[in-house]
Amino acid sequence: MIKEKTKKDRNTKLRIIPLGGLGEVGKNMTVIEYGNDIVVIDCGMGFPDKDMPGVDLVMPDISYLIKNAEKIRGVLITHGHEDHIGAVPYLLRQINVPIYGTRLSLGIIEGKLDEDPPEYYPELYTVEAGDTVNLGVFKAEFVHVNHSIADACAIALKTPVGTVFHTGDFKLDVSPIDDKMIDLTRIGEIGKSGVEILLCESTNAERAGFTPSERTVGSSLERIFAQYSDKRLIIATFSSNVHRVQQIINASARHGRKVAIIGRSMVNIIGAALELGYMELPDGVLIDISEIKKYRQNEITLITTGSQGEPMSALYRIAFGAHDKIKVTSNDVVVLSSSAIPGNEKLVGSIINALVESGVKVVNDSTEEIHVSGHACREELKLMMALTRPKYFMPVHGEARHLNANRELAEFMGIPSNNIFVSEIGKVLEIDKKSAKFSGTVPSGNVLVDGLGVGDIGSVVLRDRKHLSEDGLVIVALTLDNEGFILSGPDIVSRGFVYVKESGDLLREARSVVSSTVEKMLSGKSRKNKDLNTVRTQIKEDLAKFIYKETKRRPMILSVIMSV
Amino acid sequence: MIKEKTKKDRNTKLRIIPLGGLGEVGKNMTVIEYGNDIVVIDCGMGFPDKDMPGVDLVMPDISYLIKNAEKIRGVLITHGHEDHIGAVPYLLRQINVPIYGTRLSLGIIEGKLDEDPPEYYPELYTVEAGDTVNLGVFKAEFVHVNHSIADACAIALKTPVGTVFHTGDFKLDVSPIDDKMIDLTRIGEIGKSGVEILLCESTNAERAGFTPSERTVGSSLERIFAQYSDKRLIIATFSSNVHRVQQIINASARHGRKVAIIGRSMVNIIGAALELGYMELPDGVLIDISEIKKYRQNEITLITTGSQGEPMSALYRIAFGAHDKIKVTSNDVVVLSSSAIPGNEKLVGSIINALVESGVKVVNDSTEEIHVSGHACREELKLMMALTRPKYFMPVHGEARHLNANRELAEFMGIPSNNIFVSEIGKVLEIDKKSAKFSGTVPSGNVLVDGLGVGDIGSVVLRDRKHLSEDGLVIVALTLDNEGFILSGPDIVSRGFVYVKESGDLLREARSVVSSTVEKMLSGKSRKNKDLNTVRTQIKEDLAKFIYKETKRRPMILSVIMSV
Repeated sequence: MIKEKTKKDRNTKLRIIPLGGLGEVGKNMTVIEYGNDIVVIDCGMGFPDKDMPGVDLVMPDISYLIKNAEKIRGVLITHGHEDHIGAVPYLLRQINVPIYGTRLSLGIIEGKLDEDPPEYYPELYTVEAGDTVNLGVFKAEFVHVNHSIADACAIALKTPVGTVFHTGDFKLDVSPIDDKMIDLTRIGEIGKSGVEILLCESTNAERAGFTPSERTVGSSLERIFAQYSDKRLIIATFSSNVHRVQQIINASARHGRKVAIIGRSMVNIIGAALELGYMELPDGVLIDISEIKKYRQNEITLITTGSQGEPMSALYRIAFGAHDKIKVTSNDVVVLSSSAIPGNEKLVGSIINALVESGVKVVNDSTEEIHVSGHACREELKLMMALTRPKYFMPVHGEARHLNANRELAEFMGIPSNNIFVSEIGKVLEIDKKSAKFSGTVPSGNVLVDGLGVGDIGSVVLRDRKHLSEDGLVIVALTLDNEGFILSGPDIVSRGFVYVKESGDLLREARSVVSSTVEKMLSGKSRKNKDLNTVRTQIKEDLAKFIYKETKRRPMILSVIMSV
Repeated sequence: MIKEKTKKDRNTKLRIIPLGGLGEVGKNMTVIEYGNDIVVIDCGMGFPDKDMPGVDLVMPDISYLIKNAEKIRGVLITHGHEDHIGAVPYLLRQINVPIYGTRLSLGIIEGKLDEDPPEYYPELYTVEAGDTVNLGVFKAEFVHVNHSIADACAIALKTPVGTVFHTGDFKLDVSPIDDKMIDLTRIGEIGKSGVEILLCESTNAERAGFTPSERTVGSSLERIFAQYSDKRLIIATFSSNVHRVQQIINASARHGRKVAIIGRSMVNIIGAALELGYMELPDGVLIDISEIKKYRQNEITLITTGSQGEPMSALYRIAFGAHDKIKVTSNDVVVLSSSAIPGNEKLVGSIINALVESGVKVVNDSTEEIHVSGHACREELKLMMALTRPKYFMPVHGEARHLNANRELAEFMGIPSNNIFVSEIGKVLEIDKKSAKFSGTVPSGNVLVDGLGVGDIGSVVLRDRKHLSEDGLVIVALTLDNEGFILSGPDIVSRGFVYVKESGDLLREARSVVSSTVEKMLSGKSRKNKDLNTVRTQIKEDLAKFIYKETKRRPMILSVIMSV
């Protein structure tokens, strides 16, 4: 028996399966499997793009995990950003798994679970950087890294085949706000003891050099506070960037300003960060938004959400005059301590324009170094490769262009091309003591969430929505009697097509097109044995042809034929 | 009589009325009016943004010009970009006016008029930089400037009140490809003789320093041609940038490559530029796309449109494997000699990702200086102000943020704040010998073009399209007999709402909601005197409430009630 087990073990392979985060933004999730054990690194959600009108959120397809639920030893969270934790409630609605992460990550997850209690409330295990947890055949060590949220970790996973090192999101910050530099020493030790494969984030793989330290933002804030000492300051940033918020609060205290927080997620995360000890407040600096009237304008700093131009965020409502408590004037300076995520440029631009039109001075990262990235640039990625010295390399966390740029860096660092695996969502990489190779796929993809519905929006629905948005809609309705004669109609209704008052003639002619189609289709013998589907199709064809000829547009055409 | 005329003249004011180009991108058009004379500077079109789904083009509202048609002495074109000439055919469909411009500008306009012959074929007057034309009380001098299209001009307009200097789009290029630097000397002379008001473009008013010379792109091309001498080169750029195309052709000839042109607008503009002598072809360098198979891959350069990621452009089709003649592999290098116009970043990114996934090396402006702007940065704008020394200043051509940044530059250059006028579309600035002030507005705005329809898309249609795209559509149809009983239906059809197969129960319940509403509304006495509109409204309300409760979505609901 023992012999057989050994034999079987020898044939077992390590399988690395990304369920998200490759060739897209967000939805980071990696499955690592060996025999009867699975660990999952991160469980993030994605955001809809232009091709998904009306979709609120994007979740990873986790059917592979549901099928193998009893193998899962744990979900390991590298840090608390939505693209790494956002799908946790979705996962827990379907399977019960223990979750491991640092205090801040779990604090944010708990907040989510309180808002929207899951089917299974999970066991939550708090770890600290440096801790190792046993998960079946695996041992996972959490390693401290720098990132744009506190308490971020990489994960070194010891497996029967060798060590898998997953960087999570990271940067090198030699002067971080919490004085805890990325643990290069430990990463180097892990490298020396042998790394089988490095899974390395790729976000900034196209950017040269090193990412600046978070502390450089502090110097810029200092200049801005000095320059605009006679104005109210409104500073927008990412709510999860606890260190950024801390720096804004510190600068405010130094310059004798009170700070009020606006925006739900900003209030929530600062609350959690204070409770967990990730932030420190100078005495009496924080005031409630209702108290700002007690102070002069230049004694106030407002910290707000909305730096990506999100409609309905606090900053959006302020910019467009729709915030009930904050009205802006030429006595305000708005600082965007952020950069626009690709795709949000126009939205951010429209906020800047609206503010400028109200006489507000806007400061953003095009004129001041008021934001730094949380992700490693090319030199930092090379440093990570040099320290870990992996046998195999897989770029993760990025669009195709970023994965490819990271692949080129790995080649530059001397990793043989054959040992570099640019994977895809659902693609299985199998590793044993001798070799690594791609081997098949598992079910994977996007589950779209719109309102309460999860997964009931598919490509047909999205295509229809797109079609409707481009040329609108024409509906034909008519009622046939049981002899096949038109009893009522054809009525034609349109939406999103042309001005109703301009369309009078057009719709009148369209009605006669439909009538003559029906007449033609249902003449003579066929009248009683009418096949309504054929009639419906012919009406759509004839009407589409007529409308295109007249308008060069292709609205969606629906025909409703009722018979009595 | 003479005395009276003089008196009247003295009371006449110069009116400057922008009809586009302020607070938006594109649609540049300025009306300048004095007494019985009007000149129009530029006549551009705009492009739809996200809030205008399905709209093809945006034209300026020219009702003010139609009303004052007999006053118009001419339309002066500064250069041949779409945002300065694109509305010329639209204008000529409604009024007949003479058009003045340099050879290339008029050549491009003629191409447009041939494609789509206007109601009135205009008199076209070709001018050269340095020429002056008399237009009623006005004298317009065309002054050479540098820009990303050849033969661009500023316009110095002598008026009874003083000189109006309109920069058009410009930059300072001390080493332009055609060796014709912007005519700083003449601009200085005009400045010395007195400029009443400077209308100055604002595109890059937020960018520090000077815009690099077009010639720097040549050096980058040289490096790229040397580095990738073993690959086919596919270079995408703006078709109107004749000098850029010339540089690509020259580099190809030097490196022994043949050049094939792809993309309709690229073929058209290069044809026009060659015919008009704006480009020179080394012998035998140009080949037809059908001939590329006769050469080795690394003996070919392809020049293509699509640098903004436009769907259906040649590059888009190449990237997504839909081009019938060009298939790309790892033997191709694609160079994007352009930068993404705000709003196009994601589209351009998706093309880069698709190319990278096909193994293509992509070079763009993030890694190489392969594109330069055609617009003046801050130091050049200040230089323009210093040379023209205007009494009044109006920033034009930009969103609110750019106009405001240009206003700040003018203040820095010593123009009093009271003499700076940040205008709006349709707003009238009145200037006489003593003062300048805003005074009223004229009709102005956007005319949306979709297919053949011009102006039949309004805010209601756009709102409907947006609504349809977000949650889709549910249609209820039913037929009532003349007693008010349901004869047929209710039938429910949905599109863009939820998967049909998932919606079975939901739609069944929805039908019973509708049936009971009808039953309730038409019970007893009211059955025969039924008010169908009230029934229809109640059906929509009840159904919307039901659907929101079940799905948290708000599809558009249409009810079609027919009676026999």
